[in-house]
Amino acid sequence: MSKMIDFQTDPARYRHWRVEHDGPIANLYMDVDEDGGIFEGYKLKLNSYDLGVDIELADIVQRMRFEHPEVKVVVMRSGKERVFCAGANIRMLGGAEHGHKVNFCKFTNETRNGYEAAEEESGQKYICAIRGACAGGGYELALACNHIMLTDDSTSSVALPEVPLLAVLPGTGGLTRVTDKRRVRRDLADVFSSTEEGVRGKRARDWGLVDEVIPNSKFDTAVEERAREFAARSTKPDVEAGIKLTPLERSFDVSGVHYSLVDVAIDRAGRTATITLSGPAGEAPATMEEVVAQGAGFYLLRLARELDDAILHLRFNEPEIGIVTFCSQGDPAQVMAHEALLLSNDTHWLAREILAYWKRLLKRVDVTSRSLVGRVEHGSCFAGVLAELLFAADRSYMMEGEFEGDNRPPATVTLSAGNFGRYPMGNGLTRLETRFLGAPEKVEAARARIGEPLEAEDADAAGLVTFILDDIDWEDELRIFYEERASFSPDAMTGMEANLRFAGPETMETRIFGRLTAWQNWIFNRPNATGPKGALQRYGTGQRGEFDMRRV
Amino acid sequence: MSKMIDFQTDPARYRHWRVEHDGPIANLYMDVDEDGGIFEGYKLKLNSYDLGVDIELADIVQRMRFEHPEVKVVVMRSGKERVFCAGANIRMLGGAEHGHKVNFCKFTNETRNGYEAAEEESGQKYICAIRGACAGGGYELALACNHIMLTDDSTSSVALPEVPLLAVLPGTGGLTRVTDKRRVRRDLADVFSSTEEGVRGKRARDWGLVDEVIPNSKFDTAVEERAREFAARSTKPDVEAGIKLTPLERSFDVSGVHYSLVDVAIDRAGRTATITLSGPAGEAPATMEEVVAQGAGFYLLRLARELDDAILHLRFNEPEIGIVTFCSQGDPAQVMAHEALLLSNDTHWLAREILAYWKRLLKRVDVTSRSLVGRVEHGSCFAGVLAELLFAADRSYMMEGEFEGDNRPPATVTLSAGNFGRYPMGNGLTRLETRFLGAPEKVEAARARIGEPLEAEDADAAGLVTFILDDIDWEDELRIFYEERASFSPDAMTGMEANLRFAGPETMETRIFGRLTAWQNWIFNRPNATGPKGALQRYGTGQRGEFDMRRV
Repeated sequence: MSKMIDFQTDPARYRHWRVEHDGPIANLYMDVDEDGGIFEGYKLKLNSYDLGVDIELADIVQRMRFEHPEVKVVVMRSGKERVFCAGANIRMLGGAEHGHKVNFCKFTNETRNGYEAAEEESGQKYICAIRGACAGGGYELALACNHIMLTDDSTSSVALPEVPLLAVLPGTGGLTRVTDKRRVRRDLADVFSSTEEGVRGKRARDWGLVDEVIPNSKFDTAVEERAREFAARSTKPDVEAGIKLTPLERSFDVSGVHYSLVDVAIDRAGRTATITLSGPAGEAPATMEEVVAQGAGFYLLRLARELDDAILHLRFNEPEIGIVTFCSQGDPAQVMAHEALLLSNDTHWLAREILAYWKRLLKRVDVTSRSLVGRVEHGSCFAGVLAELLFAADRSYMMEGEFEGDNRPPATVTLSAGNFGRYPMGNGLTRLETRFLGAPEKVEAARARIGEPLEAEDADAAGLVTFILDDIDWEDELRIFYEERASFSPDAMTGMEANLRFAGPETMETRIFGRLTAWQNWIFNRPNATGPKGALQRYGTGQRGEFDMRRV
Repeated sequence: MSKMIDFQTDPARYRHWRVEHDGPIANLYMDVDEDGGIFEGYKLKLNSYDLGVDIELADIVQRMRFEHPEVKVVVMRSGKERVFCAGANIRMLGGAEHGHKVNFCKFTNETRNGYEAAEEESGQKYICAIRGACAGGGYELALACNHIMLTDDSTSSVALPEVPLLAVLPGTGGLTRVTDKRRVRRDLADVFSSTEEGVRGKRARDWGLVDEVIPNSKFDTAVEERAREFAARSTKPDVEAGIKLTPLERSFDVSGVHYSLVDVAIDRAGRTATITLSGPAGEAPATMEEVVAQGAGFYLLRLARELDDAILHLRFNEPEIGIVTFCSQGDPAQVMAHEALLLSNDTHWLAREILAYWKRLLKRVDVTSRSLVGRVEHGSCFAGVLAELLFAADRSYMMEGEFEGDNRPPATVTLSAGNFGRYPMGNGLTRLETRFLGAPEKVEAARARIGEPLEAEDADAAGLVTFILDDIDWEDELRIFYEERASFSPDAMTGMEANLRFAGPETMETRIFGRLTAWQNWIFNRPNATGPKGALQRYGTGQRGEFDMRRV
């Protein structure tokens, strides 16, 4: 195993970013420490980034929601002279294994999506103020902002030079956001994406690549004015103070990772991990004031943060674990009560934030390239938001009837109102709507059962689980399934799951994770990019890539 | 160069299929000649197919529309005992180069889409009558039919064994049609697609994999009944006789391919091909009766068939040609007149068929992995349906003003009503709607110019072309563009174009060519499938694939 990657950080440890708060406006400066790469062997020159830089950014975006709900506008700027951001570090990409490249792009995509989610879910708007060169992943950061301002001078430009320079794609949403978000005409997008030096000034605005182009002398004033204007027009409710996202309780050992509410048990021989979620220890708070007082200790927030960290840990640090199983143990009624408190107070900022976090977290589960299994055992608490994990899973197994020597309460699945709209997938549908695509009557039938703890036969009849098995079959069937699944080609699993999970409509988000990512992954495997003579590998050597010119 | 692949065939030459006509019902028998492989080195056992089998099938589907408009229902059957179709031939796939695999899948996908288009566009419905094993690409053929009937016996099953058996995907629409067309629940789709032996009988119907399961003894009667019933219920107008799709006039030489109306000039050093379309030689016929009398000689049908063949030829036989340029020469008013005749007679079966063929042909252009350039020169006839080629292109160049020594009529682009709905892309939008995504007012402004031959400035102002260039800049700008484009990595071009061309909504069709195909192409490049120890390569050796178990 290479160095373990840790997704936990906090402002005191940031090396690459700083945030200056000014009431409803936060100024976010990208100022990458050249020597602060997460791996050895490259320098993060020209505000280029690697995973470590992005882990800090993801932390900032998350804390902005929970710790700084007073912020209505975030202005993203460069802390360097003459350069905004040169994008992902090419030496790092050139040296990284295929799997790391793919995981890196997925995580950075999730963080970019987080910019857009901040405005959509909480009215926290990101502005990008570009002075200096803004290229590749740098422009993809800008594209994720909802307003782009560009200085009009000879060194300031936006560019997607990946194709001409590196023989790869702008794979962090770049191509998709250019056509689908910025609505740049496709032929102009073609010209832009094949022009190494990018586009400056008025042409950048005329083509729709930026929203405003401003003379250098007036730029700072204009950015500040625009930020104040957006803040004044914001419909985000005023909130005086946030809550603190305190460090997670967690420990790693040979058996896995252990959090306060989440346990990850790793079976290396079987190439599986079992994530067991604990139900709440006690009653739900009576009011949101109590939730605020509990802060990061509140059950559903603590659980989300721990599960989020566990998923990222498995993605990056446990590549040989092909199957992830979700289990739970606890009182489903208590899970329902905790979620109900949030659902019935969804005008309260913190209730909204916690629910929106679960939405983002469940989307992260959806795009996790491991076979996901739901296992509904006796004593489990798959209720409401936790039941979403069963619908995110590729398949699920549920215990039916009594099991010898097992005195736990019978396995149940309980739906809540939350399952019918609070946690939509990237395709814009709920997981139940996706599950019952083209059969809305089944969604309605499920809705009629909200609040009922459904035992195996009922859950099966409602189509909520894949297989129900009794004491006689349970162990054998699961053993055979796990053995067989673990023997399949991991690539075929990744491709199959990426196709089966997202039936129905596509959105910009699913297009980024589907079409764009899949093509990028293909290119990352092609000698023209990553072979010894490929453009990505040769970057910086002064030699251009040598290509096999056959079109595929 | 390997053996040239020819896409022209006719019933007298079929080796793998036979069609029995019975009035409004056609029985299509798949009866693959084991020894009739298009390449050496494999036998087409168990009704497995290769490109040669599919070229015949595509020919059948096309002739069914033009030569047999009386057919309302096509029943697809196997001509073999005990096996329906074993799918694409694995030995052929194992031995094929990456580029051939990808092109093969694209062509077979287009043919499968042609089944669905036949019902949607002309009310010609495909039924699949399955007796015997129907696996992989065999079941994907069934999925493309709009009604699937399965014999209920011990040897008849449907299966997608690609993932467990070959470590690749069911990439000819399989995964997408299972979830999006058949609406199979995603967890059941997961079980089905990872079960080598497939699903039989009642379970196949309960899961939605087939529409009917019928005891063997009653199967033939039931199929015949169903065919008659669908034919009787069909709203397809009665047509007595079709027209003959006579052989194309064409010749190949070192300079390219020469048809009666289409000329393909190949510049190998520059890695470009220029396709020049000729305008009509004379006036448009006055009536559809005259068009019927002209048959395959009618300008717009002849042009479509020649262009279709040229595109397929370039795809398969000219892999190093990275750029395809569309030019035209002729009278735009005559092109408009020919199209207008069809548009104003669109209740006439042949007018509908020719327009629908252009729709399919233009979609084929859209998914052609070459940089597509429109070049609007003086004397050209990019009007109506031909103007669609400019909107299908990745970019276009147009001559502005007088060019020294050039006495041809000035370059123009002319829009027709056809550009506003007759030839939608796979994403369901017109090319103009896709071009002006999110700016419907620009589509409306363009509509207001229907019928006007727009010279360069006007075409540019309307956003219909990318660059307009005068005599001074034309040659240099184009030379620089072609040289630069030809120097880029072909893989990066393929990925970029596949993303930029399809802005906006996605449909089952774009999902197949986007998400599914891109993942399949990635897998085709992975050692777990196609390396020396990969499952695809080892198939038939008795050894299973050996996998690198790291998940990506």
